Amino acid sequence: MTFSVTSRDGKARTGVLRTPHNEVETPVFMPVATQGSVKALDQDDLAALDAQALLANSYHLYLRPGPEIVEEAGGLHKFMDYGGTLLTDSGGFQVFSLEELRKVDEEGVTFRSHHDGSKHTFTPENVIRLQARLGSDIWTALDECVGWPCTPEKAQDALKRTQRWAERAKEAFIKEKTKSLFFPILQGGLYPELRLEAAKHLLGLEPDGICLGGFSIGEPKELTWSVLEASTAALPEEKPRYLMGMGAAEDLWEAFGRGVDMMDCVWPTRNARNGRVFTRTGALNIPNAEFRKDFRPIEEGCPCPACRRYTRAYLCHLHRVKELSAYRLLTLHNLHFTLGLMREIRAAIKEGRFQQARKDFLSRYE
Amino acid sequence: MTFSVTSRDGKARTGVLRTPHNEVETPVFMPVATQGSVKALDQDDLAALDAQALLANSYHLYLRPGPEIVEEAGGLHKFMDYGGTLLTDSGGFQVFSLEELRKVDEEGVTFRSHHDGSKHTFTPENVIRLQARLGSDIWTALDECVGWPCTPEKAQDALKRTQRWAERAKEAFIKEKTKSLFFPILQGGLYPELRLEAAKHLLGLEPDGICLGGFSIGEPKELTWSVLEASTAALPEEKPRYLMGMGAAEDLWEAFGRGVDMMDCVWPTRNARNGRVFTRTGALNIPNAEFRKDFRPIEEGCPCPACRRYTRAYLCHLHRVKELSAYRLLTLHNLHFTLGLMREIRAAIKEGRFQQARKDFLSRYE
Repeated sequence: MTFSVTSRDGKARTGVLRTPHNEVETPVFMPVATQGSVKALDQDDLAALDAQALLANSYHLYLRPGPEIVEEAGGLHKFMDYGGTLLTDSGGFQVFSLEELRKVDEEGVTFRSHHDGSKHTFTPENVIRLQARLGSDIWTALDECVGWPCTPEKAQDALKRTQRWAERAKEAFIKEKTKSLFFPILQGGLYPELRLEAAKHLLGLEPDGICLGGFSIGEPKELTWSVLEASTAALPEEKPRYLMGMGAAEDLWEAFGRGVDMMDCVWPTRNARNGRVFTRTGALNIPNAEFRKDFRPIEEGCPCPACRRYTRAYLCHLHRVKELSAYRLLTLHNLHFTLGLMREIRAAIKEGRFQQARKDFLSRYE
Repeated sequence: MTFSVTSRDGKARTGVLRTPHNEVETPVFMPVATQGSVKALDQDDLAALDAQALLANSYHLYLRPGPEIVEEAGGLHKFMDYGGTLLTDSGGFQVFSLEELRKVDEEGVTFRSHHDGSKHTFTPENVIRLQARLGSDIWTALDECVGWPCTPEKAQDALKRTQRWAERAKEAFIKEKTKSLFFPILQGGLYPELRLEAAKHLLGLEPDGICLGGFSIGEPKELTWSVLEASTAALPEEKPRYLMGMGAAEDLWEAFGRGVDMMDCVWPTRNARNGRVFTRTGALNIPNAEFRKDFRPIEEGCPCPACRRYTRAYLCHLHRVKELSAYRLLTLHNLHFTLGLMREIRAAIKEGRFQQARKDFLSRYE
């Protein structure tokens, strides 16, 4: 069994996801290691944080260092020296973000590198091959991403192509005879009926789990949550559900409360580099003048390396003068905060008090 | 006793320097913490490296965060959370590097901030006051720095002013009634006779130690070493000698072999950020194409965090894609290398085999 649900509280659930590298407790937040590194940290830091799973970006790793180097290193785990679960995205989202630099046809997506303008094509088949070469634990299928707003016709066309591509990806996946897991991507715009159709189709491909793509692309949050709810309702209990690219504190409570099992986001890491850190009572902009003489830690009692030794005043100084240590220390704090929140969410679900814990958290945080 | 020589081997010697914060084993290499942080590292890293003493720059800390914030934090040690020896320079070297932005008269140096163009004056008295507010362990005296080449007349004029300023700095130092140490700066251009005169004058001020300034400003290395030798020969055994701003591997052997006790340099840290790392057999430029598929550590057997887990190939990738972790990991390696070399140099002096150890090192390194 790849995935077992271990407890339920309303729509929220805890579970265990077994991958070739470890057993991941869900709900799980996956820090983003775009280029084979969680920005500003190294794998000693990830071990101290007990980060069970990471997302790495196929598009970025394909361009640099390139799959031949990762393959020769013995795969991405060995290249990075990381022993947890690695999930690779399909590259679809990045390629579709290139806008003028890409062209879609039935075969796949042709795009130009954002580094040197060189021309490349991603197809459902070669993206599976790419993930095989990277050696990640969870593979995704190439999908066509649409923006928001989007007409139902355009959303349906993109969904149909995503479905045909998912079928081709599944065939390519079977040929790899791998122990890695296959997670195709559920699309369908922000139309619940298309999401239902997409769910039925994907389940026919016997996936190990389902990626929920095409959210958080500019739509209002109410729409995100209602379409997400319709999507998870259409999926069987036994398949893990991965909501792609979301993970702000409030989003974790909302999405996991609707039966999502996995999320990833640059929220803790990118905000940290911008000087924005999170506490139980909300966010602080550390470079602000108000922190220049604030000799308290970011958050009293936080055991992270930034709070254990340093004051807001010192971190404010480091960030203002652009010392590299600021980016690492604030990243450590924000990931400590986020992964601590995940432990809290899992405990609340197990103990049947998820809704109360959610209310308690949000009332102090907002 | 502030300083005790504990062993001698030719002109080289080991010793113990007692400061208000710790006992520093000499010869010592002091990493540079310009803005109150060794670039890319934090103080957990410095503890793991066993860095006994650091140099911080008065000029930079004066401008940002400013002495009032450091003072309110309880001094630079508390602000940074660092328990070793902190030496602060006089700001003279930085201010004289500003060229068009500064004006010198008998009172002091008036300069414009390189950040915002605001006008400031450093005098021998206020630079001592500044160091008192920073709370560093070793204070230096404002000096007038000349370039190279420089006429004997110009070097002599600058020396005379440096001498008058050192006298004023000493008076100001006495008024502070501090346990911190007073290290005025020996100048005199690259003229041995001026250096001898300067040494006599400074010794009259009863300094705790002597800074050797005005070296490595573009002159040929032979001249550096001959004038350095003339300078240390003019100093009594019991005063610690600090050669400012030098510290490449070969320079450590040359200078400590000539009776220097302390050095500082951005050599390990700045080179690391530029991708240049040091091994027993010389330097490597990690971003070079030759390392893209080199799955060995930077140096076999090196216990630093970079060599313990990662390959040259991974570090090459991280540096090429500008991941912040590259700068930290390579900095850790280079400081491990440099501080390891210091342990080796001290052991060689104690065991009376300094010259042989120097030859062995340089024959493999160059």
